[in-house]
Parts: sequence; structure tokens; C-alpha cells
Amino acid sequence: MKIIGERINDSRAQVKRAVSERDVAFIRRLAQRQVEAGADWLDVSAGASPQQEPDDLVWLVQTVQEAVDVPLCLDSANPRALAAAIKEVRQTPLINSISGEQMRLDGILPLVRESGCGVIALAMDDKGVPSGVEDRLTAIRPVVDELRRAGLPDERVFVDPLVMAIAANTESGQIALDAIRAVRAEFPDAHLCSGLSNISFGLPVRTLINRAFLTLALAAGLDTAILDPLDRELRKALLAAEVVLGRDRYCLNYTRAYRAGELNGPGAKARHK
Amino acid sequence: MKIIGERINDSRAQVKRAVSERDVAFIRRLAQRQVEAGADWLDVSAGASPQQEPDDLVWLVQTVQEAVDVPLCLDSANPRALAAAIKEVRQTPLINSISGEQMRLDGILPLVRESGCGVIALAMDDKGVPSGVEDRLTAIRPVVDELRRAGLPDERVFVDPLVMAIAANTESGQIALDAIRAVRAEFPDAHLCSGLSNISFGLPVRTLINRAFLTLALAAGLDTAILDPLDRELRKALLAAEVVLGRDRYCLNYTRAYRAGELNGPGAKARHK
Repeated sequence: MKIIGERINDSRAQVKRAVSERDVAFIRRLAQRQVEAGADWLDVSAGASPQQEPDDLVWLVQTVQEAVDVPLCLDSANPRALAAAIKEVRQTPLINSISGEQMRLDGILPLVRESGCGVIALAMDDKGVPSGVEDRLTAIRPVVDELRRAGLPDERVFVDPLVMAIAANTESGQIALDAIRAVRAEFPDAHLCSGLSNISFGLPVRTLINRAFLTLALAAGLDTAILDPLDRELRKALLAAEVVLGRDRYCLNYTRAYRAGELNGPGAKARHK
Repeated sequence: MKIIGERINDSRAQVKRAVSERDVAFIRRLAQRQVEAGADWLDVSAGASPQQEPDDLVWLVQTVQEAVDVPLCLDSANPRALAAAIKEVRQTPLINSISGEQMRLDGILPLVRESGCGVIALAMDDKGVPSGVEDRLTAIRPVVDELRRAGLPDERVFVDPLVMAIAANTESGQIALDAIRAVRAEFPDAHLCSGLSNISFGLPVRTLINRAFLTLALAAGLDTAILDPLDRELRKALLAAEVVLGRDRYCLNYTRAYRAGELNGPGAKARHK
């Protein structure tokens, strides 16, 4: 599983403050901590002050790139902010996100065509949030088609099955897992990418639900997750799931994490309480 | 998921001592704690002193039944101990276990025929431990046939897919999950039951591996697990997995456990560290 670190998002109060005060040290540290914790990309989002978004996003891109050496996931619906940010990146980024909504297609497709960036593609369109598996497929098919026409191979498309809150609908988890399997079957070369925060919205002890979903989604075919790499319990659950699914050859990652002290913690001692 | 509490097993030093000293208070407390923690059955095993096994098992059955009101899982390969224990039970027990090994069939089948007890059936035979999915099916088919001929409907058969250590073979987890799906498909009315201790044998922080396996096995079709109900992190993982799989209507069990304080603990605060 590849990890997109989600922490540099100015919908979080501390990040918002750091962006508006141009607090370089805070953002650098947050970037470094996420990469140390295993992030393969860092998401950067600066939509809190829409007028300022292009400047803020460019500043975030520059600041993060001075601190770490991973590619970025440019998280914006604003084509102007994305265009400005793409000019600054040192490594090919992901654009987060496109969808079947006409405004998104019109705004983002030209950027994809020009830059060849990878892109996260949400399984939704102007009809709104889909309710089942079939309408997710109906929404994503034309998006993948458009991306292909824009010259982007499926290998650079990260389909987001659009995970909804279980608290609102008990079936949401199963729908998300079935959608992951269905997209995987229909677009075998595309990546499958999801955030974790929606699934557990409105439930207590959300990290427990996130861990279970991540484990099951990995088995279903999710290969990329937008998550908090600093959630240590989540990382432990992921390492263990990869072992059980036979995706950690000789359990090397798991035992290496153990030797580095990363598997310790109270959960480890549950049997001995 | 139904739970068979595994703690009353005299391969554990404390239980062995309690059995040999006839420490009623210790066994009663261990029974009560497991049932309070959600066990649907209690496994009782007294094989540490083979000569003594019938007496020890009968004593365990009597002692546990004085403390709690759940059915027992009589864990023995000794037909004489099982026959003596079956005479003492107040509720129809499970026998743990039969297999395709001729000695087990000869010893256990007559007891099943007489008593009508449910039975855990291991997917192995005299050829030894199977290596893949197909040889597990080959081993379990004649056992299920024999049990049917003995008058036991599939609903009272608990097939154990025989989970082996991932540390010895990276594929073991995936083989176990595939075997669960295959048995579920071929014997839709039978239960699927597994212990957790084998899967993580030889790996560090075993509870992490057990939690991931339990989550994935539940999705694959496991409906009964032999585990330590006092492993609180395991129980939390199971409650969360049932939510994500849509098997906890309106998340009632999960939120009830939350209100009872059962979901608390350090893992819950991982995001805020």
C-alpha cells in the first residue's frame, strides 16, 4: 500500500495558522515527520482562503520541497492554483482531484493534458454522490475515457471509489469494498486510492473503524491511501494486514518495523493486562 | 462472529496448576471473565496429564458450569474423556475436534452419533497437514460425509480450515482465507471456525497479526473463532470489522461497547499523540 500523507491541509487549524503566518519551520517539520513515518506522497491543500489559494499553494509546495524529497499530491479544485503549483514541483505530482462533474473536467483536464501529471479521479458526476456500486462505475467510466483521450495512461489514474459514512448508511463500508473490487476488475491498470476519514465520520473511536476499513480495502484491491501517517496504530494495522495477505515477503517490513520499535505500544501488551 | 473462549486450557501453566490443585475459585473466575467479555462458548481442555484427563475434564466441566451459563467446547482427542464429559454437560456442547485422521474418526464419530453434539472438523487427514486449498477440501469432504452419515446436519459442523504459521510460509494467511471462501462455497450450511494462535506463531507482537487475520477472515466467511476474549484490542478490532462489513445494524453493538467504555484505551488516542 502506498501512502499519501494528509496532514498538510489548511482545513486543520494549525496548518491554516502556519500558512497565513508563513511558518516555514512548522510546515517543514510536518512534512519531515510524515515522510519519516512512511508517506510516499504528501498532500498539500491551501483552500482555506480561496483568494489566496494560488499563492498559498505555491508557498506550501516550495516549503515542503525544501524539507523532503517525495512527490506531492496537489489538493485543489482551483485550476489556477494547480497550474501555479505544477510550475514549482520538482517531481511529477498527483492532482487531487478530477471527477465526472463538468466543471472539474473542464478545469482539470487541460492541466492533465499539458503536464502529464497523475490524477485522482472521483467516482461521481453532476448527478451527485452515487449510492451504490453500479452508479459509481457509471460515473467513473467517462472520466477514465476523458483521461485516456487526454493522453494519460490508466497507470497514472488513481480511482477514488468515494467512501461514505457508515454512520449514515450501514451498507457504506460494504459498498466501498465492492466498488473497489469492481473498479479493479474493470480497470486493472488503474490505481485505487481512497481517503479514510469519511468512512468513520460520526462514529466514536474513529481510528478503530479506519483500521478495519484499511485492512479490508487492502484485501479488496486498494493500493493507495490518503491517511495520517502519524497515526501509529493505523500503520501497525497496515503492516500486519500486508503480512496476513502475503504481501510482505518473509515478513521483512513487519520484522524491520518491530526492530525499529514501531510495533510497540499498549496494543502489543493487550494479552498481558 | 461467535466466540469460543480459549483460556481454560491446561497447556497454560496457571490453568494446569488450578486443575491439579482443584482450585475452583480460579477456574470460576476465568470462566466468568471470558463470558463477561463476550464468549459464546468456553473451551475446556485438560490434556496435560493424559492419565488424569477424564477426571480432570469432568472436574473442569462441573466447575465451569457452576460459574457460567454458556455451552462448552470439549477440547480433547481422548474419546473416554469426551464421553465422561458429555455425561456432565447441561447444554449441548461442541466437540473439539474430529478430522480425517482414521484414529480421530474411529474415536469421535461414535460419540457424535450418540450425543448429537456439534463438532469442530479439522481439514486434515492421515496424509498430514495440507499445504494448499485443494488438499484442505480433499481432507474435509470425507469428514463431512461421515458426519452426515452419523446423523449430524451440516449446521452443527464447524469446519476448521487449519490455519498455519505465516512465519513458516508467507502464503499461509492467503491460503487460510481462500480455504475459508472455498469451504463456505461448498458447504454453505456448515460453520467455519478457526483458532488464531497458529497464524502469528513465530512473529513479534502477535496480537497485531491476529487482529488483521480475524478482520480478513470475518470478511471471507469465518463465523466462529477460538480466541482469548480478554484480549481487548482483538475484541475492538472485531467490533470495528463488523461495522465496516455492514454486520452491525445501525452500529448498535459498536456504540454500545463505546458507551460501556470498552473501546477506550491508548489506540483510541493515536491521532492525538
